[in-house]
Amino acid sequence: MAKQDYIPQVPYGTKDILPQDAARKRQVENDLARLFLSWGYQEVITPTFEYHETLIAGAPEESGDSSFRFFDRNGRMLALRPDMTTPIARVAVMRMKQNPLPLRLFYLANVFRQEESQAGRQCEFYQAGVELLGAGGVAADAEVVALAVESLLATGLTDFQVCLGQVDFIGGIMAEAGLDAPTGQTVKRLLLERNMVGLGELLAGCRIDPEIKQLLQQLPMLHGKAEMLQTVRGRLNNKISQAAIDNLAEIYGLLQNYGVDRYVTFDLGIIRDFDYYTGMVFEAYTTGLGYPICGGGRYDRMAGVFGREQPATGFALGIERVLMALERQGIETSPLPQSVYVGWAADKLAAAIAAVQQLRAAGEQVELALQSQTRQEAETACRQHGCKSCRYIA
Amino acid sequence: MAKQDYIPQVPYGTKDILPQDAARKRQVENDLARLFLSWGYQEVITPTFEYHETLIAGAPEESGDSSFRFFDRNGRMLALRPDMTTPIARVAVMRMKQNPLPLRLFYLANVFRQEESQAGRQCEFYQAGVELLGAGGVAADAEVVALAVESLLATGLTDFQVCLGQVDFIGGIMAEAGLDAPTGQTVKRLLLERNMVGLGELLAGCRIDPEIKQLLQQLPMLHGKAEMLQTVRGRLNNKISQAAIDNLAEIYGLLQNYGVDRYVTFDLGIIRDFDYYTGMVFEAYTTGLGYPICGGGRYDRMAGVFGREQPATGFALGIERVLMALERQGIETSPLPQSVYVGWAADKLAAAIAAVQQLRAAGEQVELALQSQTRQEAETACRQHGCKSCRYIA
Repeated sequence: MAKQDYIPQVPYGTKDILPQDAARKRQVENDLARLFLSWGYQEVITPTFEYHETLIAGAPEESGDSSFRFFDRNGRMLALRPDMTTPIARVAVMRMKQNPLPLRLFYLANVFRQEESQAGRQCEFYQAGVELLGAGGVAADAEVVALAVESLLATGLTDFQVCLGQVDFIGGIMAEAGLDAPTGQTVKRLLLERNMVGLGELLAGCRIDPEIKQLLQQLPMLHGKAEMLQTVRGRLNNKISQAAIDNLAEIYGLLQNYGVDRYVTFDLGIIRDFDYYTGMVFEAYTTGLGYPICGGGRYDRMAGVFGREQPATGFALGIERVLMALERQGIETSPLPQSVYVGWAADKLAAAIAAVQQLRAAGEQVELALQSQTRQEAETACRQHGCKSCRYIA
Repeated sequence: MAKQDYIPQVPYGTKDILPQDAARKRQVENDLARLFLSWGYQEVITPTFEYHETLIAGAPEESGDSSFRFFDRNGRMLALRPDMTTPIARVAVMRMKQNPLPLRLFYLANVFRQEESQAGRQCEFYQAGVELLGAGGVAADAEVVALAVESLLATGLTDFQVCLGQVDFIGGIMAEAGLDAPTGQTVKRLLLERNMVGLGELLAGCRIDPEIKQLLQQLPMLHGKAEMLQTVRGRLNNKISQAAIDNLAEIYGLLQNYGVDRYVTFDLGIIRDFDYYTGMVFEAYTTGLGYPICGGGRYDRMAGVFGREQPATGFALGIERVLMALERQGIETSPLPQSVYVGWAADKLAAAIAAVQQLRAAGEQVELALQSQTRQEAETACRQHGCKSCRYIA
């Protein structure tokens, strides 16, 4: 039988999650679900794939090249969801139009991106996140950032920083510089890639005020606490960027009220990889992990494409990244509970089943032998299976 | 902006799960995970898509036409998993070869089938299930059937029947009848579709012993309790079918030891829709639902195609079907907890945040207003949001 030679593999960028990690994932997700509920957020679950045009409508630039696409039987193009923000906006407009605003929704879901081979990049990964729909203003932004901090604390992490930025800050500078849209996009891409050499070369060829050029080149260095904000504000001549700074300062004041300000810094150079953000944006980093564990921000224009203009803000947290950080930082998560092993002599299966049922009723986790054994065989099997104790029915 | 005219839809055969149902789903899944753990089963999570050849290797007939297929960047064919049995067998062989047998694994996962438009058929649906790998024999089969009963009880259902059959029973009769393989497959398909007229016509054209022909035509009626088994056994002349009956009788004896026999009947006409089964098979039905809520059986040959021959048995339960049955039978599930609504007068947001943090620390679920309101506005909003009480910070 030729098929017996088939050596199975998992697709590139995907992985199996084995029991120890699956148990930790379930625990973290349930802890997060409980937290989100206590902040008044309710869970929604959307299909794993959407019509491609839905995803394009929500996030035009990002849903093209990197999504997994296929066709239904009627020839309509489907795509695995590359994030949950667009599907949640769709649900809110399609199914929850009657609900009073603001609408607070959360999800625990896998998302899919066809990534180039990059270290640590997965094509399928798990996210927890919230979307706060129908509320503009700093109270909503502060709630979302505070909840992001509480979420990271709920997973067991303590050593992390949430970095706040504002897309209008960069937008204002680019407008002031008079960059055309394609050049602006290129600048953003170079900033996203932290390609400062490329940015320097590009700007060298542009006729821009030297002050502004300097600010653009310094963007990745503009991080710090609240004082940094005011220093930068003093250097600005455009109202859009000034208003962006004031917005961040106001959010920060509320984060002090939430008591989470020590987890918060500012990073005015933040460029998020989705283009739908319209205001405050943030990313969280933790020791020993070179990429964000959490990110989000305000996106006020998405729901409009589905037929209902409404402001929105939210975040997503990477479950695998959090689990990896917990492991690298040596943070204990509760170990898997251990079983009682129940072995049995020939013809004693009925009595063994009775014993097992009693043990389970008493709250024990039990593994029953599935063939008769000697007492010694049972004790060996108990050790091999990592069980905590052995009961032998003779 | 033309995009504002885009009216979003979800793909055919998929659906959004809104908060009330999502909360019930999470509850049922967590209850099942706890039960599976107490029986010594451990969770594994596999990628949402596999290489198509992996799925074909595990279940040759079923993974062809009805799977959603697409390509990775290297042109290899991928497919959304149509069930979890093949992926779990792959994981066991690829990643858990060192684990002592038997290996007890469980999953909570969505699976995908491109269905023809049939009422109630989803293209994406959720399953909970277990696989017991590396154990042949009736003790393993009885454990899996008993756990299926306990799983249904754990969801809150009480009015259900698990119907046991045995693929060798029908196999033995077909061998005795001397049907060639294609005719045998056609007979199975007609039985699966419960198309008795078609079966009658097909058999009328075959030269078969009239006794056997009668038995084949009566297959869908061969259900009942343990006595029925012995009556049917008396009519059999082939050893394969007789051994199949004896196997079921022995499993039933153990189910009596588990104390679950009152939920168990026999249905010798069961044909499962996956072709990989090799022994005992079963399906569970409940009042008011015309399709099984749970199904499974023994499949001893699958792991061999991945390079490790080992017997296996397991089942899967349909989460949406269980939730639908609970609803139709009026079985109460815990209602969503209600929030405290916190409103605030102008300039009182800081004080409101302090109040909210206190309420959450005391275990309350809280929704904070995101703009200032009058007391009356706050009370109206509290009612609209379905909150249980209103706190107003003035």
